[in-house]
This record gives sequence, C-alpha cells and structure tokens, in this order.
Amino acid sequence: MISPSLASIYEPIQQELLQVEENLRQVTKVDSPYLAKPLHHVLSNGGKRIRPALTLLAGKFYHYNLKLLLPIATAVELLHTATLIHDDTIDNSPQRRGKPTLNSLWDNSTAILLGDYLFATSAYVASQTGNLRVMRLFAHTLMSICSGELDETSSAFDLSQLRTHYYWRIGNKTASLFSLAAQSGAILSKAPKEVVQALRDYSYNLGMGFQIVDDIFDFEAEGEEIGKPVGSDLLRGVLTLPTIVFLESHPEGDSVKGISDLHDNLDKLNLVVGKIRQPSNIAQCYAIAAQFCSQGCSALNALPQNSVRQALVSLADYVITRRR
Amino acid sequence: MISPSLASIYEPIQQELLQVEENLRQVTKVDSPYLAKPLHHVLSNGGKRIRPALTLLAGKFYHYNLKLLLPIATAVELLHTATLIHDDTIDNSPQRRGKPTLNSLWDNSTAILLGDYLFATSAYVASQTGNLRVMRLFAHTLMSICSGELDETSSAFDLSQLRTHYYWRIGNKTASLFSLAAQSGAILSKAPKEVVQALRDYSYNLGMGFQIVDDIFDFEAEGEEIGKPVGSDLLRGVLTLPTIVFLESHPEGDSVKGISDLHDNLDKLNLVVGKIRQPSNIAQCYAIAAQFCSQGCSALNALPQNSVRQALVSLADYVITRRR
Repeated sequence: MISPSLASIYEPIQQELLQVEENLRQVTKVDSPYLAKPLHHVLSNGGKRIRPALTLLAGKFYHYNLKLLLPIATAVELLHTATLIHDDTIDNSPQRRGKPTLNSLWDNSTAILLGDYLFATSAYVASQTGNLRVMRLFAHTLMSICSGELDETSSAFDLSQLRTHYYWRIGNKTASLFSLAAQSGAILSKAPKEVVQALRDYSYNLGMGFQIVDDIFDFEAEGEEIGKPVGSDLLRGVLTLPTIVFLESHPEGDSVKGISDLHDNLDKLNLVVGKIRQPSNIAQCYAIAAQFCSQGCSALNALPQNSVRQALVSLADYVITRRR
Repeated sequence: MISPSLASIYEPIQQELLQVEENLRQVTKVDSPYLAKPLHHVLSNGGKRIRPALTLLAGKFYHYNLKLLLPIATAVELLHTATLIHDDTIDNSPQRRGKPTLNSLWDNSTAILLGDYLFATSAYVASQTGNLRVMRLFAHTLMSICSGELDETSSAFDLSQLRTHYYWRIGNKTASLFSLAAQSGAILSKAPKEVVQALRDYSYNLGMGFQIVDDIFDFEAEGEEIGKPVGSDLLRGVLTLPTIVFLESHPEGDSVKGISDLHDNLDKLNLVVGKIRQPSNIAQCYAIAAQFCSQGCSALNALPQNSVRQALVSLADYVITRRR
C-alpha cells in the first residue's frame, strides 16, 4: 500500500517501519479466534503508515532511542486504526482501502468492541514508553479526536458553518493525531523545547493539509479508488472545505441548499457534486491545503538541516500531490 | 441512587465520594453543548459508585493520599460509564437505571463517540496519579473488559459452553474492573505487596459475586426495576449462570434448547424463563455468588482489623443481599 514516492521518503526509517509492522502483527496474536481474526483483518489492511513514520522521523534529530520510539509509533497507528473502525461503523461504510470493513464483514457490535479493544491496546502499548507526558498527551489527543468527530455529527446539514469551524473540527479530528505522532517522537528523543514545538507545528499543519486533500478526494475519486461513492460526505450532511468554499463564493446560490434530501435524489446529488468539483473551486481548496503544508514546513527552520528534515519537506509535498 | 445500607458501608469515605461526584461533574463542563448535554445525562445518572468506593476504601489501610486516590477513583467510574454506554448501544437498550439511554435519546453515532470520549477522559484522569504501574493496569483492564464483551457476543446461543467459560467471561467483563479499582487504591497508598494482592483477590471475587447476582436479576426483576425485560440475556443468546446451572442439572431437557427462536415466541421465552427461575435453581446460583464473596472476604485476613476492613466485609454482604 506504500507508494514508491512514499517509500523513498521513508528511506531513513525503512527498517524501523518494518518493526512497527511486526509490532502490529504481534497485537493480532491472541488466544481467542474471535478476537484474532478481526484484529488481523484490520491491522493487515495496509495503510500509508504516515503517523508512525512521523514519530520515527521526528525522533531522528536528537537521541534516537528505538526502545521508546517503536512503542509510541505502534500505539499511534493502533489509535488511528481504532478511530477508523468506529468511523466506518458510524457511517455504515462497506469498504475501506478497497477491502470490506469490519462492520460489513462481522457486525456493528464486533466493530464497536474491537475498536474499544484497540483503544485500550494502544494506551497499553504507549505506556511502554514509561513517559507520563507522552501518555497524557496520548489520552488528551483521543479526547480531541472524539470532540471533532462528535462535532461532525452534530453540525451535519448546518449550511451556516464557517471555514473557521471546519478548521477547528479537522484540527481536532485529524491534525491532533499527526501532532501527537511527531511530538512524542521529539519528546522521547529528548529534543529541546523549541524543537518539540517546531515538530508539533509542522505535523499539525501537515495533518490539516492531509485532511483537506482527503476531503477534496471525496468529490473527485471514483468509488473503487477510495472505497466510497463520490459526494459521500455531502450525503451525510458533512460540510467540508470544497462545499464551504463554494458556498462562500455563491452566497445566493440555492443549488447547494436543501442538501438534506440528497439521499432520495441522486440526480440532485450529482448536480451539486458537479458544481462543487468545478476546477476553480477545487484549485482553491488545493491552494489552501498547500498553504497549510508550506506553513508547516516553515516551522522546520528550527531544526538541523539534514536528510531527515528533507524527508519531512518531501512528505509535505507528497500530502498535496498524492493521488489518493 | 445510593441505598441506606450502602450509605452506611460508605461511611468511612462519605466526604471523598462527594468529591468524586464533583470530579464527575467537572468532566461535563465543556464548551461544546453537543458534548456537554449527553455527558451530563450519563454522568448524573446516579450509580451505586461501588468501584470508586472500592478504590477509596482500599486506600485507607496505609498512606491515604487523596491527591492520588481521587483521580483514579474518578477514572474507574468514568471507564465503567463508558463501557455501559457501548453495552447499551450494542444491545439497543432503551433504559438504564430507569432513565432513557444515550442511544435512545440521541443516536448510535453519538453513543459510540461519547463512549470513546469517556474512555479517553478516563485515561487522562488516571494519568493524574502520575503512576505508570496504575496506568498500565488501567489500559490492560480495558483490554480485558473488551475481550469479555467480545466473547459474550461470539459465544451467544452456544449451549455447550461450560461454567468455567462463563467464569472466564465475567472475570474479564466485570471482576477485572473491581480488581483494578481496589488494586490501584492499594498501590497508590503504598501498601505492601501482599496487601495489594489481598485487596486484588477480595475485589476480583466481589466482582464475580456481583455479576452473578446481576445475572440472576435478569431472570427475577420486573422490567421497571432494572430497566429491561425479564430474560433479556437469554433473548440475546447470552448464557449466564442461572441458565448454565439449569442445563447442567437437565442435560436431557429440551425446553431450553432452541433458544435462538425465543424472539419470535414470547410464550416460549416465558416458559424457559419460568423453568430457569425456579427457586432451587436460583438458590444454587445465589450460593455460588455467596461463595465468591466469602472467598474474597477470606483474603482480607491479610489486612489490619479495623472499621474499613469491616466495611469491605459488609460490602460483600450487600452484594449478595441487595435487591437490585
């Protein structure tokens, strides 16, 4: 699942990422087959592993200590996986990364409990760092993620929400975990305060850019590519940047209004999606994503100039230029 | 919600329990109304607060340090609340403690995410102890709880399961949290190793007794009393001690067989419930619950003989004699 361009960015931490994969495999080695099978399904699902990569890269600038970095890199990916499982359950998604979801292969009960089990496992694995600050940050990040997710549900179909609201939401939902990933790497490698802050700023902005691009994909990609139909956010009433930017420039336009009935009217959905995905609108969103990534990269000036710092810059490029 | 008999057992920790209530109230004080309202609903729901009481009582034998004990007592209750929210969502329960559940008042999405938020909050509050051992135990206990819950789902309708299987399940699902509650109190009060072990044994067995009595209630109580219909476990295919003991003494009996169609046949459900709730069967289950509690109390011999130890013995009595 890791693309060639990503693999070359990950070059400085290639071996370590294999150890993260091995740690994830270890999590699936449990006695109960009822637990082992779904665990295997979700953990061998192959993600981009951007979050553990961030931890490992961020840990490279000072005292690189794999005994501390590997647990938190693994824990961050486990936490991410747990949130995806609950997301898919809430959205009733049939597919993720081209494979059937847990909720579709098993059922909602199993998906809820397995997500919970992975939350617990992630906290347990994080505790292997023996670092209280990191563990507090870890728990606090999950609180942020849930606040963001809850807001997504509760502000659905609210056409009056502003861009700042959206930024707040994806900051909690997505960027907070990127930020945790890099910050813990920095803390555990005993980086000085200003370097921790720089890596935090970098990764938070990277997460913002990443989520915006993901939200653009929802209007662009074909079903098979991302495993869900085009416009699926809109269908759930979730207003993301492409819709918000469109509404800002069409304050009088009524074609996006009344999105609550799109479910019964796929022609109308396609019409609305067609308007939002027009090149000028999408280009504006890409420009905003790029701005976040560029702001993130400027924080890297506080870091030593080396190949790892270059990898972080390339990762920011990748986030914007990736095709999915 | 705390009965007079429980209040008198809690007498040595009365003031501290009020502080736990205040801490729980603090958790509901968040900016977002979408978060604050459901949080208030679940945290002011009034439980028996047995788990935080266990922590506080267990902490009374050595260096009683409220600055450490209050966070973990609060965290244990938060963890318990989070698991109840997900349980109710999975079971589609309309009521809990006579009040409508979160999933019935809001929806499943909110219930899943709010449960997640409370898991995270509980871990965050637990981290205020600054004690790594307690935090690891905390995360590990949630793993056990989820394993037990997953087993409940996956072994549903399996009539061949043995009593040992049931003990394993409720040990994970319920007793592990009782055990965490008392153990952390002991650890944080710097109790010697054998005292930690004694309080662990006591509380684990207490939890076993507690769950067995709860499972008996499912066959006894009227809907209004516990907020769910009689035989609701059986209806979901969950075999608890009353059913297992009945099957053991009626190996040839076919009246409990074929429980998978009870949903469509309420007359048959009532017939089966009637058989299982017969006095001799229920008495046998109570005897087993009492045996667990008595075994738990015998572990208390390792502790100083004082009023707190007496309170723990009375709590074990209460677990067996309570009416709900």
